[in-house]
Amino acid sequence: MSKGITSRKEDYSQWYNELVQKADLAEHSAVRGCMVIKPYGYAIWEKMQAALDKMFKDTGHSNAYFPLFIPKSFFSKEASHVEGFATECAVVTHYRLKNDGSGNIVVDEDAKLEEELIVRPTSETIIWNTYKGWIESYRDLPILVNQWANVVRWEMRTRLFLRTAEFLWQEGHTAHATSEEAIAETEQMLGVYADFAENWMAMPVVKGKKTETERFAGALDTYCIEALMQDGKALQAGTSHFLGQNFAKAFDVKFTSKEGKLEHVWATSWGVSTRLIGALIMAHSDDAGLVLPPKLAPIQVVVVPIFKTDEEKKEIDDLADALIAECKKRDISIKFDDRDTYRPGYKFAEWELKGVPIRVTIGARDLKNGLVEIARRDTQSKETINKDELMDKIVFLLDDIQENIYNKALTFRDEKITQVNSYEEFKEVLEDKGGFLSAHWDGTAETEKLIKEETTATIRCIPLDSPLEEGVCIYSGKPSTQRVLFAKAY
Amino acid sequence: MSKGITSRKEDYSQWYNELVQKADLAEHSAVRGCMVIKPYGYAIWEKMQAALDKMFKDTGHSNAYFPLFIPKSFFSKEASHVEGFATECAVVTHYRLKNDGSGNIVVDEDAKLEEELIVRPTSETIIWNTYKGWIESYRDLPILVNQWANVVRWEMRTRLFLRTAEFLWQEGHTAHATSEEAIAETEQMLGVYADFAENWMAMPVVKGKKTETERFAGALDTYCIEALMQDGKALQAGTSHFLGQNFAKAFDVKFTSKEGKLEHVWATSWGVSTRLIGALIMAHSDDAGLVLPPKLAPIQVVVVPIFKTDEEKKEIDDLADALIAECKKRDISIKFDDRDTYRPGYKFAEWELKGVPIRVTIGARDLKNGLVEIARRDTQSKETINKDELMDKIVFLLDDIQENIYNKALTFRDEKITQVNSYEEFKEVLEDKGGFLSAHWDGTAETEKLIKEETTATIRCIPLDSPLEEGVCIYSGKPSTQRVLFAKAY
Repeated sequence: MSKGITSRKEDYSQWYNELVQKADLAEHSAVRGCMVIKPYGYAIWEKMQAALDKMFKDTGHSNAYFPLFIPKSFFSKEASHVEGFATECAVVTHYRLKNDGSGNIVVDEDAKLEEELIVRPTSETIIWNTYKGWIESYRDLPILVNQWANVVRWEMRTRLFLRTAEFLWQEGHTAHATSEEAIAETEQMLGVYADFAENWMAMPVVKGKKTETERFAGALDTYCIEALMQDGKALQAGTSHFLGQNFAKAFDVKFTSKEGKLEHVWATSWGVSTRLIGALIMAHSDDAGLVLPPKLAPIQVVVVPIFKTDEEKKEIDDLADALIAECKKRDISIKFDDRDTYRPGYKFAEWELKGVPIRVTIGARDLKNGLVEIARRDTQSKETINKDELMDKIVFLLDDIQENIYNKALTFRDEKITQVNSYEEFKEVLEDKGGFLSAHWDGTAETEKLIKEETTATIRCIPLDSPLEEGVCIYSGKPSTQRVLFAKAY
Repeated sequence: MSKGITSRKEDYSQWYNELVQKADLAEHSAVRGCMVIKPYGYAIWEKMQAALDKMFKDTGHSNAYFPLFIPKSFFSKEASHVEGFATECAVVTHYRLKNDGSGNIVVDEDAKLEEELIVRPTSETIIWNTYKGWIESYRDLPILVNQWANVVRWEMRTRLFLRTAEFLWQEGHTAHATSEEAIAETEQMLGVYADFAENWMAMPVVKGKKTETERFAGALDTYCIEALMQDGKALQAGTSHFLGQNFAKAFDVKFTSKEGKLEHVWATSWGVSTRLIGALIMAHSDDAGLVLPPKLAPIQVVVVPIFKTDEEKKEIDDLADALIAECKKRDISIKFDDRDTYRPGYKFAEWELKGVPIRVTIGARDLKNGLVEIARRDTQSKETINKDELMDKIVFLLDDIQENIYNKALTFRDEKITQVNSYEEFKEVLEDKGGFLSAHWDGTAETEKLIKEETTATIRCIPLDSPLEEGVCIYSGKPSTQRVLFAKAY
């Protein structure tokens, strides 16, 4: 393992790419645009999944599984939906290979599908086609279902975790009797995502609505959470869509209401993906490597022994064993790194690179005086304490680190939200400082498009807590009633 | 919900199909051969996953994720592997759709892939191509990785859970420095599967090796667990493969040994799938519906109230609330079915159909005397007990039901293993009694094939515990040293 990585200042993008690979999180596969998520990266995803899954279930949702393939005709039923996804679809056309007689394996042209199948880029169409069979009366509603799955969007420019042709995600798909109920669900799930981002990922987010231009293909309203990365660029971390009756109409899904009327069903969908791992990395990590929030760290505590004799090792082992037992009781994941193939200095660098929140060094000499060293990854500070205080200290630090990295990210983010009142100021701040620009906008797609073309900045969201305020659009000078958040974005 | 299902005696196959659908486990999707796993069915899969995942981690494995797609050239590298899977592959040939100008969505012929991609039917090839980059020295071994994923095998005749074009599974892929270590891993994972089948699914299995004919495409040895269904047919419930150096050679994966020599790596792979849900259903269920082992039941206890007045309901609620709190503490999943849209009789039938192990009926009249009724699904027996004994009774019954359905299945299975010593006897027992036939076989693929053609029975496995014994092949009369197990199979 070569441990040096490019610094963020030198080349932020390069820093990210090197970190993802050197910390053993993921790598590019031999399949264009697809990644291999390595065990250490996947362990973070499993922690995310477990926390989110519990939140979904606590809000009444169940998991289910729908087909990977979507018949082309289904996919085409909702006009704006197909328009949004058609240019990035993997298409299955055949179902058999054969030997061509000279030893080459070729596609068997006799096994051509009558109708092409699309590898799901998202599952609204196949799911609403299924819901048609599940819904007859108001008694069958609401349907609150989530799916953990892989999806494929044929992206031309890919980056590990942030944008890949195949990625892992969850997609919630709910069906409701009323518009109000569906909107409440959309907002509830946005709240779940914000809660997860802040309390698990230690990543502050702005909750808001997307503009019409940025809406999910087929939605009436898209809500989102937007986070800020350390390079001043925004990252959309989760979306929750109010789909109105669009999919119910496309797939003819009606229910008999309590009053006996036949009505179309109301829908939502919402999702987060392995992109969150990219956000997690870019929100907290530093030039020495990953900085992981304790709640999502696969290994929370690593113990490194330093000794010369077998007798010294034995004493260290005894303490380590006791510590492991204590940690296990408290559901703290701990690793005793007593590999004899590597020196302590190498191990320190490795676990720093991998972002383990707490490192405990048990040195034989210190131990004779009842002392051990404990180091925290976030501040890279360390102290020597009595071994009897170790467990309490670990428990304290796990909370303290979680809180500290959240506060650090919050201070950074807040400092990077700038109110601007003219287009000149907008461009200046965007280039010099970056971050979110809170500005008046006239509400037209035309202005939004021109600003994007001229500056690459997009409207990340109309914040939910943005107060009504008289103003004029920084671009067109037309009247505006509310500020929106612009930023350059991933 | 119409509750009546065909009886097993009447039509076993029809009974199974109706049960899967009426118990809300799964349904056929609009995509040929693909199923929708409904929330209740998926909840069983989640319980299976949780138990297996813990067993994999306890034996040192980590999860990771590899691409859905496999380039055709990789797929073709291991000759017997591609031969085994070529005829059932979904092939991606294009990556874009377009509007043809007259409003039809068609495949964009300009977006044809240079090399076709196969939707993984299994991941040996893409994984071994990846391992090449992970392995240099013996220090990098073993690699103990598992993947939870969807796979696609284009089956022409499909049945829910048992055989579908897309299914969910786990596939372990490990890399080792020596043949011995790889074989030990193969055997260890077979043991994990047998442990899971018996202690979680309450389903006795025979551990054995497959004959050469029935081996996984690319394996040197395939180990399997075989279970017996109630109709006397066998079902392969899990396989563990010793792959030798086949994939390491195909993908040129070598390591430097401790002695400094460059050697090919040794491999295993092993998997179980959503097919296990089919096995679970067919092993235990009866004409009234599912019978689920408590350890895998999504709902372990259901409480149905019977009352007339609000005051009565209030008293029942108090008892139910206390019971729910007690169950939660013990990690027992309980559902209080106080829907007012259905009558108690309807609820009884519904939960019976869905296989909830324990039903508690709290009737207002009984409750006045401090009594409640508790019914067990496996024996369909019920008793009236004092409400203060309820919690202890539930705890007792959960264990007792788990044990009882295992013992019932074991008795059934053992009674259906018949030693036969002639081909006449073989055919007679196969038709009249079914089950496993323990018979001498001459060890040739030719005999195996002829018996299969004449009777449809296949060699399910050479049991690991089958003693060496002199005998003659029931078919050819040639000498044999060991009995093997034949059966008709799913």
